Amino acid sequence: MTIPSPELIAIVGAANALTAASDVAPYLVESRGLYKGTTPLVLRPGSVAEVSDIMKLATATGTPIVPQGGNTGHVAGQIPRTGQNDVVLSLERLNRIRDIDPVGNVIVADAGCILADIQKAAEDVNRLFPLSLGSEGSCRIGGNLSTNAGGTAVLAYGNMRQLCLGLEVVLPTGEIWDGLRRLKKDNTGYDLRDLFIGAEGTLGIITGAVLKLYPRPLGHQVAFAGVASVADALALFERASSLAGPALTGFELMPRLGVEFTAKHIPGVRDPLETRHAWYALIDISTSDSAENASRMMENLLEAAIADRIVENAVITANETQGKALWHMRESMSPAQKPEGGSIKHDVSVPVSSIPAFMAEADAAVMKAIPGARICSFGHIGDGNIHYNISQPIGADKETFLARWREMNAIVHGIVLKYNGSISAEHGIGQLKRDELAQVRAPIEIDLMQRIKHAFDPTGIMNPDKVLKV
Amino acid sequence: MTIPSPELIAIVGAANALTAASDVAPYLVESRGLYKGTTPLVLRPGSVAEVSDIMKLATATGTPIVPQGGNTGHVAGQIPRTGQNDVVLSLERLNRIRDIDPVGNVIVADAGCILADIQKAAEDVNRLFPLSLGSEGSCRIGGNLSTNAGGTAVLAYGNMRQLCLGLEVVLPTGEIWDGLRRLKKDNTGYDLRDLFIGAEGTLGIITGAVLKLYPRPLGHQVAFAGVASVADALALFERASSLAGPALTGFELMPRLGVEFTAKHIPGVRDPLETRHAWYALIDISTSDSAENASRMMENLLEAAIADRIVENAVITANETQGKALWHMRESMSPAQKPEGGSIKHDVSVPVSSIPAFMAEADAAVMKAIPGARICSFGHIGDGNIHYNISQPIGADKETFLARWREMNAIVHGIVLKYNGSISAEHGIGQLKRDELAQVRAPIEIDLMQRIKHAFDPTGIMNPDKVLKV
Repeated sequence: MTIPSPELIAIVGAANALTAASDVAPYLVESRGLYKGTTPLVLRPGSVAEVSDIMKLATATGTPIVPQGGNTGHVAGQIPRTGQNDVVLSLERLNRIRDIDPVGNVIVADAGCILADIQKAAEDVNRLFPLSLGSEGSCRIGGNLSTNAGGTAVLAYGNMRQLCLGLEVVLPTGEIWDGLRRLKKDNTGYDLRDLFIGAEGTLGIITGAVLKLYPRPLGHQVAFAGVASVADALALFERASSLAGPALTGFELMPRLGVEFTAKHIPGVRDPLETRHAWYALIDISTSDSAENASRMMENLLEAAIADRIVENAVITANETQGKALWHMRESMSPAQKPEGGSIKHDVSVPVSSIPAFMAEADAAVMKAIPGARICSFGHIGDGNIHYNISQPIGADKETFLARWREMNAIVHGIVLKYNGSISAEHGIGQLKRDELAQVRAPIEIDLMQRIKHAFDPTGIMNPDKVLKV
Repeated sequence: MTIPSPELIAIVGAANALTAASDVAPYLVESRGLYKGTTPLVLRPGSVAEVSDIMKLATATGTPIVPQGGNTGHVAGQIPRTGQNDVVLSLERLNRIRDIDPVGNVIVADAGCILADIQKAAEDVNRLFPLSLGSEGSCRIGGNLSTNAGGTAVLAYGNMRQLCLGLEVVLPTGEIWDGLRRLKKDNTGYDLRDLFIGAEGTLGIITGAVLKLYPRPLGHQVAFAGVASVADALALFERASSLAGPALTGFELMPRLGVEFTAKHIPGVRDPLETRHAWYALIDISTSDSAENASRMMENLLEAAIADRIVENAVITANETQGKALWHMRESMSPAQKPEGGSIKHDVSVPVSSIPAFMAEADAAVMKAIPGARICSFGHIGDGNIHYNISQPIGADKETFLARWREMNAIVHGIVLKYNGSISAEHGIGQLKRDELAQVRAPIEIDLMQRIKHAFDPTGIMNPDKVLKV
């Protein structure tokens, strides 16, 4: 099939249509370099009307369209297929904050707004937009929505799904669904919003959203605790959750190896404790009423946990700068693995109470398969979400190690499924896990998804072969 | 078409198949008496397998099936149509709590469990299941899920949608989707769970669910404040929300007339303030760490609000019994209107910041249409959700007044839509608002819903003509 390039280019203007290999190259690779796509054309529309016109023409001509935000996704959902004439539709120019209402606690934004810009806009009116993740300086809110992004504040505020009140979506036909509602409660028919959220651009293109804002907490306290085991970290989480309730805004697990990697490779990061511990917890408490309250909660939590020998040693930060440094260490867990060679990654979840058993079993299986492998698993223990990453053995060949990616996936995911877990807790399915999803889920579940896909995108032009093989 | 009654009866056994007029009568009317359906047969299956067998036979024979839980819905979604041979499938015998895990903070329950029984089971393991609403003693969790129930704790804990981790659903074909996951994070394809939640039984029958539990708050404080206007009530809400953050577990608005109705008609209810006020707020604060904290927050809130003349007078309850009495008054707002004659009801939401303007405009329009009408609007002001009820003028004829239901709906909903609100904030669409939904929503939105309905229920047997006219 021939792509109607001149007509598509006419919609956005020549300046916003990229065809030269060097211009389109950045849109074709994802951060981990596992996938590289091809495209005849990258379109950068400047309005929702242009997105609509593109989709109308795409439907009329059967042109496959791949929507892309900040290109930070880890499963290649945003990368065009190879040799299929997929046209990339970048939302990057749709980056206007349409409205912000601190009384109604909402912000209305174009899908191409960068997450950090949304956070900043909220801060400017003394509000909090709580979504926070490593790539917040470049990921875009449409991508965050399309992948139901999680991050480090899910414990208290939920995933992207919980932070969105309304959506505007351009359908494969070019029709526009205006669901930009600002309502906290609205029980009027099927939940279209949550169907588009997490659909990875396979049902339509999110072009705008109404997002929730929150009061900025007055109190904020971060602490770092060394513990002897994952089970102790979980016990500490349970105490923190009971004591602080919704004021527990973060609880992250890190292994000794991860702390060493960051101290070694990330400028400015150092181990805040003088003692060595097998595991570490980063605890973040935010209180609405007073700063003292956050401090008091954190002190009570850690004093009791040390007395009861759940925590071996701990430090409470003295100011925001120290707190930020701890979070920086946590956010650097993944980049710090790069200098250590190849890393085979998993983004899995299991029921919270199964985490210690899952990790013990996975560790044993991985070490048996690859003796000398260095497991650096960390993540959002309170959400049951572990980024189960495996760095290559010291001195091993990187390519040989990375060639075992699927094999390691099979081992780790097999144990995840045994605990009724998920093979993708927050990164989505994209291309990377598409075939595996079809294997691990019941046929009826895949069939229902296929029916939805077909109902919304009967001609199959909308980000084809992502999530599902159509 | 003939209903295959003997075969259907054989599935559940004669003792659980009702056909006599007196036996089926309770399944045919809803609480407000606006709708009365007919049925040849009420089936009371005792297992998920029986539900599946019923649906297989229903698909094979084109038999319409209407699922029903506690029959407490307000929009007749659970009531069979008249003269259409709709078979009622009652979930009432599927009322087993399958599992409860206080460490993992989940409860797994059959759809027919009564809400109060779920609350009680959670309490027995020192946990909280926060969904709370007037009919909790008889409504069933499957109905709560199918209508995405709201209630009085939405502010802190969200709607039913936010309280559910996983579902088990019997599809119209009888196939069973086992989505009973216990995961806080799971981004693996389309959000089937949220599609079934709020679908009012038109896409399948929810038979089981994994629900979230929470730590029981240590501190709890309830107060009752008299204010001069809705705007002042909203200002007080904003202060309470900023001060208490997620510890603000309830904030309800009531008018003077509502307080008078409950004091007059509901045994045991009395006005807790000696002074008279135009409006009242019920404020509920729950804290995880200490009882003192809840008291301190409430005192700080009300002292400052009185000093700033936002609150005219207030009382803080001295114990749980007094707190329960205040909540009992709030829960009695609707029943207390019954002895006052006919009441035309609306369940609407608008953006929170638009509530004062919406109410002023609606009040003026209603009073112009029906001079002497007694507006008794109350509800969840923090959610933007008002139960905008209109009691008949004193001495008016009840039937003549109630005959103006649709006319009043048109007036009130017209103003709701002007503020980009919802004509059903928490009760759903059912039969009552089906045709109106099709009028007020964009054709593309109705079209997308029809496509989903058709994809899941191609033969149209699943609770037909509810939500959508198929």
